[in-house]
Amino acid sequence: MMNTLPAPGLTLATFASQLRFDAIPADVVARTVNLYVDWLGSALAGKGARPVETIAAFARRAGGSPGGPGTADVLIDRTRATPYFAAMVNGAASHFAEQDDVHNGSVFHPATVVFPVALALAQARGASGRAFIEAAVAGYEVGIRVGEFLGRSHYKVFHTTGTAGTVAAAATAGRLLGLSPERMLDAFGSAGTQASGLWEFLRDAADSKQLHTAMAAANGLMAAELAHDGFRGATRILEGAQGMAAGMSTDADPARLTDRLGERWATAETSFKYHASCRHTHPAADALLAVMARERLAATDIEAVVTHVHQGAIDVLGAVTVPSTVHQAKFNMGTVLALVAWHGHAGVDEFEREYAAAHVAAFRDRVSMAFDDEVDRAYPARWIGKVTVTTRDGRTFVGRVDEPKGDPGNTLSRDEIARKVRTLAAFSGAASAGEVERLVADAWQVASRDVLGTLFPEGSA
Amino acid sequence: MMNTLPAPGLTLATFASQLRFDAIPADVVARTVNLYVDWLGSALAGKGARPVETIAAFARRAGGSPGGPGTADVLIDRTRATPYFAAMVNGAASHFAEQDDVHNGSVFHPATVVFPVALALAQARGASGRAFIEAAVAGYEVGIRVGEFLGRSHYKVFHTTGTAGTVAAAATAGRLLGLSPERMLDAFGSAGTQASGLWEFLRDAADSKQLHTAMAAANGLMAAELAHDGFRGATRILEGAQGMAAGMSTDADPARLTDRLGERWATAETSFKYHASCRHTHPAADALLAVMARERLAATDIEAVVTHVHQGAIDVLGAVTVPSTVHQAKFNMGTVLALVAWHGHAGVDEFEREYAAAHVAAFRDRVSMAFDDEVDRAYPARWIGKVTVTTRDGRTFVGRVDEPKGDPGNTLSRDEIARKVRTLAAFSGAASAGEVERLVADAWQVASRDVLGTLFPEGSA
Repeated sequence: MMNTLPAPGLTLATFASQLRFDAIPADVVARTVNLYVDWLGSALAGKGARPVETIAAFARRAGGSPGGPGTADVLIDRTRATPYFAAMVNGAASHFAEQDDVHNGSVFHPATVVFPVALALAQARGASGRAFIEAAVAGYEVGIRVGEFLGRSHYKVFHTTGTAGTVAAAATAGRLLGLSPERMLDAFGSAGTQASGLWEFLRDAADSKQLHTAMAAANGLMAAELAHDGFRGATRILEGAQGMAAGMSTDADPARLTDRLGERWATAETSFKYHASCRHTHPAADALLAVMARERLAATDIEAVVTHVHQGAIDVLGAVTVPSTVHQAKFNMGTVLALVAWHGHAGVDEFEREYAAAHVAAFRDRVSMAFDDEVDRAYPARWIGKVTVTTRDGRTFVGRVDEPKGDPGNTLSRDEIARKVRTLAAFSGAASAGEVERLVADAWQVASRDVLGTLFPEGSA
Repeated sequence: MMNTLPAPGLTLATFASQLRFDAIPADVVARTVNLYVDWLGSALAGKGARPVETIAAFARRAGGSPGGPGTADVLIDRTRATPYFAAMVNGAASHFAEQDDVHNGSVFHPATVVFPVALALAQARGASGRAFIEAAVAGYEVGIRVGEFLGRSHYKVFHTTGTAGTVAAAATAGRLLGLSPERMLDAFGSAGTQASGLWEFLRDAADSKQLHTAMAAANGLMAAELAHDGFRGATRILEGAQGMAAGMSTDADPARLTDRLGERWATAETSFKYHASCRHTHPAADALLAVMARERLAATDIEAVVTHVHQGAIDVLGAVTVPSTVHQAKFNMGTVLALVAWHGHAGVDEFEREYAAAHVAAFRDRVSMAFDDEVDRAYPARWIGKVTVTTRDGRTFVGRVDEPKGDPGNTLSRDEIARKVRTLAAFSGAASAGEVERLVADAWQVASRDVLGTLFPEGSA
């Protein structure tokens, strides 16, 4: 190794293995805490959702121990499970409401695969808040770089949060287990060879999205536990000739795996979701809101909206024209724009009440997507929103946002995050208003805890 | 659906859902029983193997219930686990010794992903032997066709037994759960979107092979249980524009998915493994044995062997030149040919004792692989073995076999299968000679059992 560069996967594994809390800038730690609190809202929001509850029921059955000897919180029902099943169920739950965070450049949702693992293992092992933050940041930094490495060709067919997410979850778990660089690389190997998740489910409004995050979290945790016990993984699972990129990408760039490790904090580049819909709809939604505010338009003034989008938006959203479920509606540009036009915000309540309402459907059918070269070239580093709005009285306006709400330069405040958690918990009924206040107040302090205990010290709901 | 052909995935799911014991020809049932007994030997052989035991330890920990309320046998240690973990551990165990069966045309190892699921769910549900056979045949027929569909491009990077195997496991589980065609298709969707397994691990002699089969079995079982409870999967996960073939193959042929369903019994095309090594080494091994027998050569008479092989053999075996573990030696053409030259057979005991011995290494280094156009064109439908042997005294002989031992036209007898089980159980110490006799005698009768109970009625070892 003296005169040759180490393999990029090993460099990345070494970084994840050796990341120390004190090396993480204070503003990155603070942002990580915000991402964690934001994630709690999404995890609570999954309660009662059929796909999530179905996975939870499977986990109870497969675990063979309902109400058994678990050491990690399951947020939707306040039971305690083994870390494996807690990670599985919380991973499913936190990706349901389409409110969990996203990293633009990698098109990867880190929180839903990282925090279920970090919380479960930290609770089971009585880890400190500093260890919890280290593990979470390790997961974000690794997963984002793996997503960037796999590139746009990968994302056309694969759900990067399922694939890169498995490696992110392994990095998180591996850090909490104290894996050496070599064992961390083993964990990457066992995670990467299990990486999966295909977009095909979107055409049918099927339930696979929650399965992808559930299993990315669970499989990543498993990979790290196996590595801890000496189970060997491929040392070049990311970049090797028969590895992830070889099988699942045509434009992979290994340099992205090690991009400014320890200097560039990709964690802090992560965007919060303001609207409860697929992130690909947010830039256009905010651009429409900007036009409506500027020109003082109401929804009823608008004849048509053309959204000028990147190819990835067409690939992911194009499959659905008339949504048949709330979840599918969150992947429908017309529905999202209709809800923001009518309500100024497309939140979980707006979707639930109105996604199929006649006034929303009528607006939806007057929204179209058009490929835009500038937007596409900027993507995925920047998610530019551009719309052309035609009014009923024949005027035409163009609108543009360069940073949709929730992006790093236009981030959510702690008050806005707390409000989001309140809305999500109330929506699902997973916690009372008072419980949410206590949960959130505690969570802001997570980094300074000596030991991470249960989130529900007063017992089950 | 009146005037259009149904999607091939739906046709395949309908076949798996509706397969009835009475529709399976008697000789196919008999062959399935042989494959089951053969599998028992491989499952027992995994006992004590580090990767297998590591996965078993993980399963006990993740399940939270060591020695707990399981209803399905774990063969390596005679504990009882939930069907999920029993399938996981038996799936890991039965792919370790490289003695489990293989279907040539699909390059897929069916037993190691099908029987762990069939046995676990049949035991847990008290199913009959006929239901067990139905489920196993459903898994073989589905998995083999999915493997053939994914094609050679898939197998260059992906371990088909992990990918197609997940769908095979789902078909097996779905049949035992009595899924309707629509729910079976949901199971395929949730299985296919989890399909994974990369060949990269071979370069490092890593442990991923057992992880692939463990998780194919467990994930396929999970997919079927979720579908039973209403969890929706993509309806075109195999052939859709963002499905398995789109993401993981460049030469997929959808016609293979429905090839003569109910007329062609792919189950009976499955080959038993005679040598304890990667199947890609068997044709050349048998061709060498044929030359040695015909020309009355001893190992010491041989100067060099050129094996004339298909590209797939080079892709899979080419990564290893000097094996550093027993397992890697099973993927090394030179070692396999050395063992058969010296012993007439490359079994688990021969590998364990001699894979690194000087006389074996010396022979190994005089074996090479050369691409052969005829062999490659026949593959994967036929696995032709061709060798050119040069002797120390300067003679040259060519040898050829058209059906390696274990292939359907050169299959193992029940006596040979029973002997194989005895050898494997003795190798690992998983069962005494007397126990093996009883286990095998019982297993020949599996199809006529009213209820499938535990394999170990006298309790744990």
